[in-house]
Amino acid sequence: MDDRFSNPWRTLKTRVVYDNPWIRVREDDVIRPDGAPGIYGVVHYKNRAIGVLPIDDEGYIWLVGQYRYTLDSYSWEIPEGGGAEGEDPLEAAKRELREETGLEARTWRTLGQAHLSNSVGDEAGIIFLATDLVQGEAEPEGTEKLELMRVKFDEALQMVLDGEITDSISVIAILRYAIERE
Amino acid sequence: MDDRFSNPWRTLKTRVVYDNPWIRVREDDVIRPDGAPGIYGVVHYKNRAIGVLPIDDEGYIWLVGQYRYTLDSYSWEIPEGGGAEGEDPLEAAKRELREETGLEARTWRTLGQAHLSNSVGDEAGIIFLATDLVQGEAEPEGTEKLELMRVKFDEALQMVLDGEITDSISVIAILRYAIERE
Repeated sequence: MDDRFSNPWRTLKTRVVYDNPWIRVREDDVIRPDGAPGIYGVVHYKNRAIGVLPIDDEGYIWLVGQYRYTLDSYSWEIPEGGGAEGEDPLEAAKRELREETGLEARTWRTLGQAHLSNSVGDEAGIIFLATDLVQGEAEPEGTEKLELMRVKFDEALQMVLDGEITDSISVIAILRYAIERE
Repeated sequence: MDDRFSNPWRTLKTRVVYDNPWIRVREDDVIRPDGAPGIYGVVHYKNRAIGVLPIDDEGYIWLVGQYRYTLDSYSWEIPEGGGAEGEDPLEAAKRELREETGLEARTWRTLGQAHLSNSVGDEAGIIFLATDLVQGEAEPEGTEKLELMRVKFDEALQMVLDGEITDSISVIAILRYAIERE
């Protein structure tokens, strides 16, 4: 491989500084690309971020509202959740959609993938488009207190453009679908 | 305010478990929305993520390639960097664009904002569109070993749609500009 694209970092030592069921934080002693010594604190995510954009036959989507503890503010987002390592992301997507909205979908496809915050963490997100929807009963998890909103897709797109939806997975899902439907 | 949108979490105790120049990780003892006790590990980002989409008069943009230590893989992205708390994000954007590409821009506007990973962290990103470009000399930081690529905007958009660009800030910037130019 062309040397320009090979790893210019050298890891001298690594130690875990924090661990919980969702993340593991480590600090590495490194030699940086310019040859100087340094440290790198890396947040490893134990789950993959799963997002689902559910669109019904009338062009409506579902948004989930919840208070985000990390931001200390309320956030409207597409249905999302964590998919464990080893779990099929599509199965996780089906579960999260059902738990948060009660919806089931007959048709699924991948809408996009992203690394959410690659300067500090390794979190990977995958987004599915869910169509041919059937309504059932929602079953939120204990850590979630959710509101549901059914809105026209164009209204959700406007919420992204106006900065009213800021969650990165939701922003990517909605922008991407807006482009693909053209 | 409608009680449905108020904070359903209660913080009992908080302690810092890791701190470096870029992030501070804390673990809180909490009462969850369902009333059960739990913990929440929160990654606080000391810098805001700044992204710049530089577009020249011929419809070309600049991508920066670098090896991402967190992912152990190579990544093509728009010019990005960190803006310290208290620093004007636009000034940080001008500095990052100049350092990474040598470009200066006469016209700037905000292209979007996002919270990159709100289940675990509070990282906020802001993206600027930079136009009326003038080429100067790049000055990368010691932690960076960068490649530059000038590509047609439509080619970059295709790289996003094909999953060749996965960095969330870059994905959001490129999708959003694709919609706004319509």
